[in-house]
Amino acid sequence: MALNTKIDADHNAPPVTRTLAEFVVNHPSRGWSDEVDHEAHRTFMNWLGCAVGAAHHEAALAALHAVQVLKPSEQATILGRRERVDIASAALINGITSHTFDFDDTHLKTIIHPAGPVCSAVLALAELTGASGRQIIDAVVIGIDVACRIGNMVYPQHYDRGWHITGTTGGFGAAAACARLLGLSVDQTQMALGIAASQPVGLREQFGTMTKPFHPGGAARAGLMSALMAREGFTSSKRAIEAPRGFAQVASTKFDWNEITDELGKRFEISFNTYKPFACGIVIHPSIDACVQLRAKGVTPENLERIDLRVHSLVLELTGKKEPADGLQGKFSVYHGCAAGLIFGRASEDEYADDIVNRPDVVDVRRKVVATVDDAIDEASVDAVATLKDGSKVHIFVEHAIGSLQRPMSDADLEAKFSGMSDQILGADQTRDLIKACWDLGNAPDARKVAGLARAKA
Amino acid sequence: MALNTKIDADHNAPPVTRTLAEFVVNHPSRGWSDEVDHEAHRTFMNWLGCAVGAAHHEAALAALHAVQVLKPSEQATILGRRERVDIASAALINGITSHTFDFDDTHLKTIIHPAGPVCSAVLALAELTGASGRQIIDAVVIGIDVACRIGNMVYPQHYDRGWHITGTTGGFGAAAACARLLGLSVDQTQMALGIAASQPVGLREQFGTMTKPFHPGGAARAGLMSALMAREGFTSSKRAIEAPRGFAQVASTKFDWNEITDELGKRFEISFNTYKPFACGIVIHPSIDACVQLRAKGVTPENLERIDLRVHSLVLELTGKKEPADGLQGKFSVYHGCAAGLIFGRASEDEYADDIVNRPDVVDVRRKVVATVDDAIDEASVDAVATLKDGSKVHIFVEHAIGSLQRPMSDADLEAKFSGMSDQILGADQTRDLIKACWDLGNAPDARKVAGLARAKA
Repeated sequence: MALNTKIDADHNAPPVTRTLAEFVVNHPSRGWSDEVDHEAHRTFMNWLGCAVGAAHHEAALAALHAVQVLKPSEQATILGRRERVDIASAALINGITSHTFDFDDTHLKTIIHPAGPVCSAVLALAELTGASGRQIIDAVVIGIDVACRIGNMVYPQHYDRGWHITGTTGGFGAAAACARLLGLSVDQTQMALGIAASQPVGLREQFGTMTKPFHPGGAARAGLMSALMAREGFTSSKRAIEAPRGFAQVASTKFDWNEITDELGKRFEISFNTYKPFACGIVIHPSIDACVQLRAKGVTPENLERIDLRVHSLVLELTGKKEPADGLQGKFSVYHGCAAGLIFGRASEDEYADDIVNRPDVVDVRRKVVATVDDAIDEASVDAVATLKDGSKVHIFVEHAIGSLQRPMSDADLEAKFSGMSDQILGADQTRDLIKACWDLGNAPDARKVAGLARAKA
Repeated sequence: MALNTKIDADHNAPPVTRTLAEFVVNHPSRGWSDEVDHEAHRTFMNWLGCAVGAAHHEAALAALHAVQVLKPSEQATILGRRERVDIASAALINGITSHTFDFDDTHLKTIIHPAGPVCSAVLALAELTGASGRQIIDAVVIGIDVACRIGNMVYPQHYDRGWHITGTTGGFGAAAACARLLGLSVDQTQMALGIAASQPVGLREQFGTMTKPFHPGGAARAGLMSALMAREGFTSSKRAIEAPRGFAQVASTKFDWNEITDELGKRFEISFNTYKPFACGIVIHPSIDACVQLRAKGVTPENLERIDLRVHSLVLELTGKKEPADGLQGKFSVYHGCAAGLIFGRASEDEYADDIVNRPDVVDVRRKVVATVDDAIDEASVDAVATLKDGSKVHIFVEHAIGSLQRPMSDADLEAKFSGMSDQILGADQTRDLIKACWDLGNAPDARKVAGLARAKA
C-alpha cells in the first residue's frame, strides 16, 4: 500500500516539465556536434528502412484497414505503400511498421526504441507543414532527447513494473518534436507535454503480438495530437511529469529528476542510439557476426567441416533451438543464425523466412555448428573456430558484436540493411535515391522529397 | 520495490479478458430488467445533455480546431454543433464536452463517469453503421458494465495511485461497446479489449485543466479504434487485463478478479449510476437541495431574513468561501449554492456564471446564509431553518440529497436538467424533440435520428 497511500510521494519535485519545454523551444537549431547531427541522420534512415520493409506486413494492413474506416484525407505518406492518410493515422501506421520486425533502433541505457514514436510523428507533420529537412533533424534530436531522458528518469523500475517504455516515453518525445516543428511557445509546449502525459501507451504483456509495434505508433499519434491541441489552447497540468499524481510518480517507483536536467542541451541521448544488424535477439549477435567474418575469410558451405562456438550460457538458454521448424523458431536458434551469417553474410528478416530456415543447404550448415558454454566468455562476446575439410582452421574472436556502441554499424552497414528491406518494396533504383535523400536530409529544402521517395509507386 | 520485483504478481489470475469478451458477444439483447433498460436511457440522455451544453466551451473549440487540421471526413455529429467530423474525432470531442462541466453521471462505487467514454464511442460509430436504437442501448449497458466492473476490480488503489479511473477504465468500456455494435466474434472482442488495455488515459494531476475532460474523450477514441483494429485482424495479448504484466497488475496494487465475474450478466453496474443535479461538488448538494425545497415552500429573497444551516464539517472545509469573486469560486461556496437554490430553484452551470455570482440580489441572499458545523449531521445530510421577516420559521431536513442513489433524480428532473443545458444551444423546440427521441431510443429504427436532433442547425 506504500504507493497507494503515496507515502513515497515527492511533493518537492523540480519543475522538469517546464525545464523540458524551455529546452524544446529555445535550444538552437543544430545546437550540437557534427557527430550528433550525423547520428540523427542515421537514426532517421534506419527508422525509415524498417518502416518501408514492413509495409506489407499483416499488422500494417490491419491498421490501415481500420484507419480507412475513417475515410481519412490524403495528407501524409504511409512509408513503402501507395496509400496516403491523415497525418495522425500516418504517424500511427509508420510507427507500427517501424517496430514490426523488432529490427529498429535501441537506446541501450533504457532499451527504448526512440525513432518509432518520434520520427513517425515528425515526418507526417512535416509533410503537411512543408518543414525543411533541417527542421526535421532538429525535431528528431530534441524529441529523442526528451523521450530518452524521461526514460532514464524512470528506468528500470518503470519497465520492470510492466510498462513498454518505448510507448510510454515515446508520446513525450513525439509531443516535444511536434511542438518544436510547429514553433509552439514554451507555455504551449508545456501543455503539449502535459496532454501527452495522460496517454502512456504500452504494456509488456503485449510482447509477441501486433500490439507491441502498436505502442510506438500509438505514442506517435498521441504526441502529435497533443501538440496540435496545445497549439489551439488546450490546457493541462504544468507539472504533469513531476507532480505527485503526475506521470513519473504514478507509473514508476523510481524518478530521478536529475536525469532530465543533467547536461541538458550538452549531452544528447541520440548519441547512445544503436541499430540492430540482425533481426533476432541481441544475445546471438556476436555468433552471427563471427560467422559473417568467417565468410569474409573464405569459409564457405562447401569447404566447411564444422564450426565450434564458445558462448555465454545465456546464448543456449535463450537461443539453443537445434532444429527450428520455421522463421519464428529460427530467431531462437543460434545454429540457424550462424548458418545465415555464413551463407548469406547477413541475418535480416529475409533470412528468417520459413523457406530459408528449411532450405537443405541452410539446414546442412546449421548442423555443422557446435556451441559450447564457456563461462570465460562474456555475454557480448563469442569465440568461433571453423574447421575446414582440408583440416585447416580459421579462428575469430568477437569481443563486441557489430551494432554495439563499441562497434557501431558503419554508414555502409546501415545502407546495406536499408536496401535489404527496401529493394523488394520500392525497387533498387528508388531505394538508392531514398538512401541519398536520407543522408542529405539536413540540407533538404522540403520534407516532401524524402517522403515522396518513400512512397510506393504502385 | 515490491511492485518492481513483482513479488505480488498473481500468475494464476483467472481469464477475465476472455470472460468479458464472451459476455460482450453472447449476452442477449435487452437481457436485463425494464429498470436497467430505463436506466440506460436516463444515462444516455444525461450524457447527451451535458455534451450539448458544453458545445461552445473553449475546450471543445480547441479540440475541434486541432482535429480540423486532419481535414476529417464528415461522418458523425459533434453534439450541439453544426460541424461533422470522422467518427474517432467525434468520439473524442463528445467525450470531452460530456465531462467539461463536471455535471455528468457518476458510478458512486468507483466515482467513474461511465457515459462519457462509452456513449461517445457508441453514438459516433452508430451514426456510421446506421445501428438501431436497440443496438445502441444494448452496447451502452454492456460497455458500462465492462468499464465499471474493471473499476470495481482495481478501485480504490488504482485511483489512489493517481489514475483518473474514468479514462483508464473507459477505454475498455468503449472497446466492449463498439465490439458489440460491430458484431465482433469473441476472439476479436478479446483482441479489442487487449488493444485497449495498452492505452489507459488519465492522470488525476490534470484535474482543474481541460485534460481532465480529455480523459473520457481520449478513452472513447481509443476504445473505438481498438474495436475497429480488432475487426481487421489486429492482435493483442489474450490476457491483457489479468496477466502479471497486464493492465490490472501494472496499474493497480489491488485486483479483485471476482469483481469481474460475480453475477456477470445478472447484476448490471449501470443500475448504480447517478446524475448530478447541481454543477458543483457533491458535498454541498444537500444544502442546495434544502434551499430549493424552501423556495417551493414560499420562501423568497423578499420575505427572507436569514437561513441557518447545520452541516457536516467537510462542507465548510471544502466549500466555505463566503465571498466568491467569480463562477469558479462560486463552486466552492455553500453560500452561493444556497442563494442559487433559493432564487432560481436550481444550480446548473448557468447559475455559476460570473455575472450571476456577482449579481446584487444573489450576493444579498448568500449573505443571509449562516452555516454551522454540527457533528451530528451526516455528510449526506443538512438541517436548514429559514427565518422570515415576519418572524416565522420554515424547517427543512434533507437526509439524502436529490441525485443520490436513495433519492435519484426523477425523469422530469433529468428533462429539466437537459433543457437547462440544451435550450440555449439547440433552442427549446429542438430540445423538446431531442428529449423525446432519447426516451424513445430503444425503439428507434436508426441512430441517426437522435444524432440529427442533437446537431445545431446553424
